[in-house]
Amino acid sequence: LVSAGLDDEDTFKILIATDVHLGYLEKDAIRCNDSYNTLNEILKCAKTNQVDFILLGGDLFHENKPSRRCLHSCITMLRQYCMGDSPIRFNILSDQTVNFNTTQFPWVNYQDENLNISIPVFSIHGNHDDPTGAEGLCALDLLSASGLVNHFGHSHSVERIEISPILLQKGSTKLALYGLGSIPDERLYRMFVNNQVTMLRPKEDQDKWFNLFTIHQNRSKHGPTNYIPEQFLDDFLDLVVWGHEHECLIAPTRNEQQLFYVTQPGSSVATSLSPGEATKKHIGLLRVKGRKMNLHKIPLKTVRQFFIQDVVLGDYQDLFTPDTPHATKKVEEFCYAKVTEMLEEAERERLGCPLTPEKPLIRLRVDYSGGFETFNTSRFSQRFVDRVANPKDIIHFLRRREQKEDIKDEVNVDYGKLIKTAAVEGLRVEDLVKQYFEAAEQKVQLSLLTEQGMGKAIQEFVDKDEKDAIEELITYQLEKTQRHLQARGVTTEQDIDAEIQLFRDSKKNTTEEENEIREAMNRARAHRLERGDNALDADILDELAEPMDSDEGSVPFPAPTRGRGRGSRGRGGRGRGRGEDCKLMFSKFIEECRCDTRQ
Amino acid sequence: LVSAGLDDEDTFKILIATDVHLGYLEKDAIRCNDSYNTLNEILKCAKTNQVDFILLGGDLFHENKPSRRCLHSCITMLRQYCMGDSPIRFNILSDQTVNFNTTQFPWVNYQDENLNISIPVFSIHGNHDDPTGAEGLCALDLLSASGLVNHFGHSHSVERIEISPILLQKGSTKLALYGLGSIPDERLYRMFVNNQVTMLRPKEDQDKWFNLFTIHQNRSKHGPTNYIPEQFLDDFLDLVVWGHEHECLIAPTRNEQQLFYVTQPGSSVATSLSPGEATKKHIGLLRVKGRKMNLHKIPLKTVRQFFIQDVVLGDYQDLFTPDTPHATKKVEEFCYAKVTEMLEEAERERLGCPLTPEKPLIRLRVDYSGGFETFNTSRFSQRFVDRVANPKDIIHFLRRREQKEDIKDEVNVDYGKLIKTAAVEGLRVEDLVKQYFEAAEQKVQLSLLTEQGMGKAIQEFVDKDEKDAIEELITYQLEKTQRHLQARGVTTEQDIDAEIQLFRDSKKNTTEEENEIREAMNRARAHRLERGDNALDADILDELAEPMDSDEGSVPFPAPTRGRGRGSRGRGGRGRGRGEDCKLMFSKFIEECRCDTRQ
Repeated sequence: LVSAGLDDEDTFKILIATDVHLGYLEKDAIRCNDSYNTLNEILKCAKTNQVDFILLGGDLFHENKPSRRCLHSCITMLRQYCMGDSPIRFNILSDQTVNFNTTQFPWVNYQDENLNISIPVFSIHGNHDDPTGAEGLCALDLLSASGLVNHFGHSHSVERIEISPILLQKGSTKLALYGLGSIPDERLYRMFVNNQVTMLRPKEDQDKWFNLFTIHQNRSKHGPTNYIPEQFLDDFLDLVVWGHEHECLIAPTRNEQQLFYVTQPGSSVATSLSPGEATKKHIGLLRVKGRKMNLHKIPLKTVRQFFIQDVVLGDYQDLFTPDTPHATKKVEEFCYAKVTEMLEEAERERLGCPLTPEKPLIRLRVDYSGGFETFNTSRFSQRFVDRVANPKDIIHFLRRREQKEDIKDEVNVDYGKLIKTAAVEGLRVEDLVKQYFEAAEQKVQLSLLTEQGMGKAIQEFVDKDEKDAIEELITYQLEKTQRHLQARGVTTEQDIDAEIQLFRDSKKNTTEEENEIREAMNRARAHRLERGDNALDADILDELAEPMDSDEGSVPFPAPTRGRGRGSRGRGGRGRGRGEDCKLMFSKFIEECRCDTRQ
Repeated sequence: LVSAGLDDEDTFKILIATDVHLGYLEKDAIRCNDSYNTLNEILKCAKTNQVDFILLGGDLFHENKPSRRCLHSCITMLRQYCMGDSPIRFNILSDQTVNFNTTQFPWVNYQDENLNISIPVFSIHGNHDDPTGAEGLCALDLLSASGLVNHFGHSHSVERIEISPILLQKGSTKLALYGLGSIPDERLYRMFVNNQVTMLRPKEDQDKWFNLFTIHQNRSKHGPTNYIPEQFLDDFLDLVVWGHEHECLIAPTRNEQQLFYVTQPGSSVATSLSPGEATKKHIGLLRVKGRKMNLHKIPLKTVRQFFIQDVVLGDYQDLFTPDTPHATKKVEEFCYAKVTEMLEEAERERLGCPLTPEKPLIRLRVDYSGGFETFNTSRFSQRFVDRVANPKDIIHFLRRREQKEDIKDEVNVDYGKLIKTAAVEGLRVEDLVKQYFEAAEQKVQLSLLTEQGMGKAIQEFVDKDEKDAIEELITYQLEKTQRHLQARGVTTEQDIDAEIQLFRDSKKNTTEEENEIREAMNRARAHRLERGDNALDADILDELAEPMDSDEGSVPFPAPTRGRGRGSRGRGGRGRGRGEDCKLMFSKFIEECRCDTRQ
């Protein structure tokens, strides 16, 4: 039990986890049970720690249509760990038919008189297990129909999102639990910019509530509008549990503009061999008492170890150069030694951890720029087949990695500006893509796609999912650019570098970006007011009719629209109805995240 | 409520249904909800009648991998109707870890302290929702993991089947519930013939138990070994609930050899437009008190009406012949009138049945032999698009139907003899197929497949499922035969006809067939004894070691092997340990099946 001394009848104890990706690589000979073992560990941990509930941040399932084994295991584990006689010590005050709107049983499972629930699970859906089909059902809904999970945060409208919290009370502590299931990032970004996302708040005792929000979106900036900036989220929030991002950054970080904290638990299984997944995996034990919180991170023991290392061959001129005799052989032996080192480190770390799988994941990224040749990786793999969980893809050869990434950044930015404008002007993806190419071409002075070719590419891509389409187009364009640059030689690369530096400097001042967004929002609102759009529903009209500086205490569940909140407060100012003191107390209560590795 | 006067604390009240085929045509614009509505009706009926439990004979799901909607609906309905506060008034005496061996919760759902079950559902799996994959899980197992269904009768061995009953007691009534989930017919046939199927019996009070068996196999003879003869089933049984067959023949019929009854509830949705599906659909309310039973059939109101009619155009020479001017047009109008008649009949029948869907299924089978031409069915369909649920396939043109079937019969029989022999001699399917062709070729004097071609065909087919392979081969051979006959002209057809008649006469005496089977079984046993096969497991050795005429009362759960039972008893003789009187009483208690169509 973790810090049980902190527990009392006024303290919510919540297990937070996300991106379990149940069923990931379930057909792999070595890794087939990884995701299952870890879900088992998570649920067991919840039971051992006698938590009040489990909060999942989406992607419980890896596949949109989980296999029978996957569903069967999940159902079995939930029934095993989350049913039983332990009493539930908190109440729900909100309208449950609004909170749990995806089943014919619109109430929390532990209040169902036919089910004996000991640990309620609350979950939003992720992008992997998102709702599909005419019925808008997701895999999670099978669990909620069975009464094993409380699926919440499912917005049925694509026009407007209203997030109505689950209002929980334990003793004197009031917890407002907000959730928003995964939505394509671009669309949600656009909705935020267009002021179409509203978080409802309880009318009474607004400043007594601890406001917890669970979201499953890109947090890091994959593209200009292909993520959700923290600044988009309402500043009345206290803590955001951010799903989707796989890197474990579970220690809450303070957003200094919005004055809330963000915890990013990260996935509980590595689904790629990227550096983010190599961070040690944890889940969190969150305690909330009054407006104070405490997050204790718990390392997961069943997670397969993952070690990643980068080497740049050019940095080892004392060992070899491209001209050294048998250079390739020497490079291979060098890499062999590196992998062996990592394996030894893995073994040391695993000592005394019987639950950790024996074979670790190993990734060695080898930058062979400067004339080196790649060696035969399949022969290399053979040498580690008994010791590594991913023998086939240990080595990843790459060239001039830094440069590639810079270019990507640079090209994306043009696109981002376009999206922002477009969101306001109501352009469609097709137009955006076209504009993107036009702008990109002007800037980099490339004409790699003919007008016809581009038309075809656009037509092919717009039929797909927005996100996929745009990502594919960007990748496509990047590859073309890359080839073009290689053809031109180093001189052009230097030109590009200079331009990149220029751009980076221009971006250092984030205020500019902030202002852009605010301006866009104001324009959107003005635009709608001008049109006097009759198609808007009553809620929106009410909200618009409200004076910008209205006293909001009098409105039941007032919609604290972002634009208004931000406008009246200014950056770094105080949140409505909540004093700075409260924030300070709150942050004091956060302990340094202790990590009992042998908990 | 149906005949509630019969109910008392010693009477089991069981709702029996089978082949619900949930999800059948769920994407059809008209019929998409049919299977869902009917499952809802069935469960509602169980609740209204306050049954002790529901017994399903397999194929609850139409698809092996039901859609999300399908699973979601099923879970929702089961939770809605089968959970609640009504107490369960019977006990389970058998070893539940043996009975319910497909989940990690090997006990009946109503005894799970975390679930409040009001109506337990017991189900075997069918051929549509059969177990697949490395884990041997079927869709039903998702329901049993959730605690919504008790999946039983799943045999994990392909070598030997031991059916261990669920022993239930209500007041003074003892009910032994046997089940066997679907197995490919040929394989099960062979296992019966090889004496590899054993039904265990309780040691104590053997003649006090009412023995109920649920099976999901072909009952009608689709091919010589492509069904399970009732005679294969143990004669200690009292009632067999036969699933898989879609025709509703729910009124129990007495097997005069085995002295048990068979009820065939039939599917609750028509999944083909064949005559069997046109029989009015029912479910059954089975009452068991002591050794007596009563089966009340309940018509299903939500089932879409289905009317089928056959016309032979040659029979209407007063209206048209192939030479009549505009004959095709006249035939079309004739068919139009027929369909309209059926529609009117459907409408009359539907009067006062608000739950019955408006548009019926209509099938007109038109034999156009003798020179008639077919008319354009798509134009015909247009005329009924608003009135018929299956406008596109109302008309089914065929020629000389009777003859085709006769040939099929004839060819199959040779094959069947081979299978019987083969089962004894331990031949494999490949050999059977080869022998089949050799025999067929000798008999019909056809050499349509060259030796090479045959080899190839066999190789292609043996990789598939046995059943499919054999069916495909037969179809293939039939088509070849048909074409060959057509090429030869009528003379040959007459020869064939003569031969068919000869064969039919030879088959009139079923005793011969019976004897064949008995002989085969004796040979199999002798063969095994001769070999002194050490690979046999202990149970089999014990059984073989037992004297043929041993007193079986002393053996716990003795295995009443079919061969022995039949051998010691002779045809039409008495069952072991049960007097003829008991059987007579039993049959007297069976009421004429009352059919309250407006129940």
